[in-house]
Amino acid sequence: MHPFTATTADSVSTLGELRLIAAIRRWLGNATPPSPAGIGDDCAVLSPSRHPQVVTVDPVVYGEHFDDSIPPRAVAAKLLKRNLSDLAAMGARPRAAVISLALAPSVSTRWLEQFYRGLAATSRTYRTPIVGGDITRQPSGFTASLTLIGEAAGPRVLTRRGAKLGDAIYVTGTLGGSILGHHHRFTPRLVEGAWLAARPEVRSLMDLSDGLAKDLHALTPDNATPSLLASSIPISAAAHTLAKRDQRSAVEHALSDGEDFELLFTVAARADHAKFEAAWRRKFRTRLTHIGRFTCTPASDALPLATFQGYEHLR
Amino acid sequence: MHPFTATTADSVSTLGELRLIAAIRRWLGNATPPSPAGIGDDCAVLSPSRHPQVVTVDPVVYGEHFDDSIPPRAVAAKLLKRNLSDLAAMGARPRAAVISLALAPSVSTRWLEQFYRGLAATSRTYRTPIVGGDITRQPSGFTASLTLIGEAAGPRVLTRRGAKLGDAIYVTGTLGGSILGHHHRFTPRLVEGAWLAARPEVRSLMDLSDGLAKDLHALTPDNATPSLLASSIPISAAAHTLAKRDQRSAVEHALSDGEDFELLFTVAARADHAKFEAAWRRKFRTRLTHIGRFTCTPASDALPLATFQGYEHLR
Repeated sequence: MHPFTATTADSVSTLGELRLIAAIRRWLGNATPPSPAGIGDDCAVLSPSRHPQVVTVDPVVYGEHFDDSIPPRAVAAKLLKRNLSDLAAMGARPRAAVISLALAPSVSTRWLEQFYRGLAATSRTYRTPIVGGDITRQPSGFTASLTLIGEAAGPRVLTRRGAKLGDAIYVTGTLGGSILGHHHRFTPRLVEGAWLAARPEVRSLMDLSDGLAKDLHALTPDNATPSLLASSIPISAAAHTLAKRDQRSAVEHALSDGEDFELLFTVAARADHAKFEAAWRRKFRTRLTHIGRFTCTPASDALPLATFQGYEHLR
Repeated sequence: MHPFTATTADSVSTLGELRLIAAIRRWLGNATPPSPAGIGDDCAVLSPSRHPQVVTVDPVVYGEHFDDSIPPRAVAAKLLKRNLSDLAAMGARPRAAVISLALAPSVSTRWLEQFYRGLAATSRTYRTPIVGGDITRQPSGFTASLTLIGEAAGPRVLTRRGAKLGDAIYVTGTLGGSILGHHHRFTPRLVEGAWLAARPEVRSLMDLSDGLAKDLHALTPDNATPSLLASSIPISAAAHTLAKRDQRSAVEHALSDGEDFELLFTVAARADHAKFEAAWRRKFRTRLTHIGRFTCTPASDALPLATFQGYEHLR
């Protein structure tokens, strides 16, 4: 479905600001609480917080993050979920989201309705009220940016810093080939992230958005290098499918493709890894893989990560 | 100064993502705190809050909110200040901002540097750390969206609801003609807003962004109508200047022009208005004008507000 219409009568420009905002409130339904907790005042009001709070922002842009092949409901779901994945990556839970839209006058009202209905559905699934937003005209295109405010599930927030030489490296799910559908169908690992933040043996955490080979740098301590075995990488079925189509191996897809939205974290070397993994398996069905560890020098059979390029946002 | 460059070497696309993010952190300097309180992790971390919190989001789009005549530093200042004005309109103080940019590959690196340096300067002036953001490519144009998180200055947040029949209507500053420069040179009324929220006789508050005639509806109780006298409206010098150029009167500009970023509020009918105004004047040099009150039926000499059109965002 195409976001734009050639028929002025079907476009947001015909609707005008007041009627458009009224329509958005109708489309969002109970995904937006009554004012002043939701839309309708100069700001939305949130209650005080007990634990540390976190904030993140991520966009979806037509022609960059989605095209005509992605239904508008899925575009909206992706927008909210990619931000939820950032919250998961800190061990936080969602409190509220605000959304800022910049639209060409030719954006189709029908397309936009499906976008907001998809946003509302995802908002309800993940208990993330849409408390405010802004909608503005831009000369062309469709740009939506969502800011998400969360609160730590407990007293501790897990950051990218904290890994030490010797730490074991873990990843959730399977990697690669996200472009075949996972990039909008994924489940943000909120429950897993909150659980990890409560485990003292877990020292650092992030989510995978630009590919393991690129993202792992952010967790790597200054005096260490990641030693990963190719045989340990959990390769997705989609990565195998892509490998059959192009000149690149499935493991290369698993290391380089963007938008896995899985969690990458490290566990202290001295921890009882078998016990940690057993605790995970009692709690979750989500796949967990020990993919390697941080060493002084790379193991001779370690993957040459530097040769794999991750996703580059601005080219 | 034009935001785009015809020379690829001077464009953000040449810089690439990692170098661009490094440059942005340099341009922001101490306006962004060290990670995890600032840029560099999956989310920025904020401390718990004691008072209610507020959140708002507003954009600036090239060709809509600014053009080549506005220096990039002023564009950034406007972006942050229009959000600060929304905080002022609740009686809240800024805690943190995140900024989301969608850029054509041809955006000039020099222009963007000035934009971020302007953002940093305004951030320092109003003690609003830039704690995070996102930068992404879009096919064309320049779209920046800023989300601002604030905390009520005291236990009470002032909303648009709360005015009653008989309430006196006040406005700060002078109105109209913002397009001549005020729209990016204005001072958000943060101190005034916080002070108003602490005064029990003040019942409702908002900021003026779409023109008094349009915005006043939001404060008007269901059973009342605003009775304003033309002679009471504080008309800006810029509104007079515009009136000399076009067919519209200065009062029409004062009522209809957008982007005044002044505060509009109501004071209970029974309050001692003289005492309230005297308290204001002891505290502030900002002009305060009693422009009318909410009545059952419009006074015979009241301004016919419905005949004035406010600023329409989506046409």
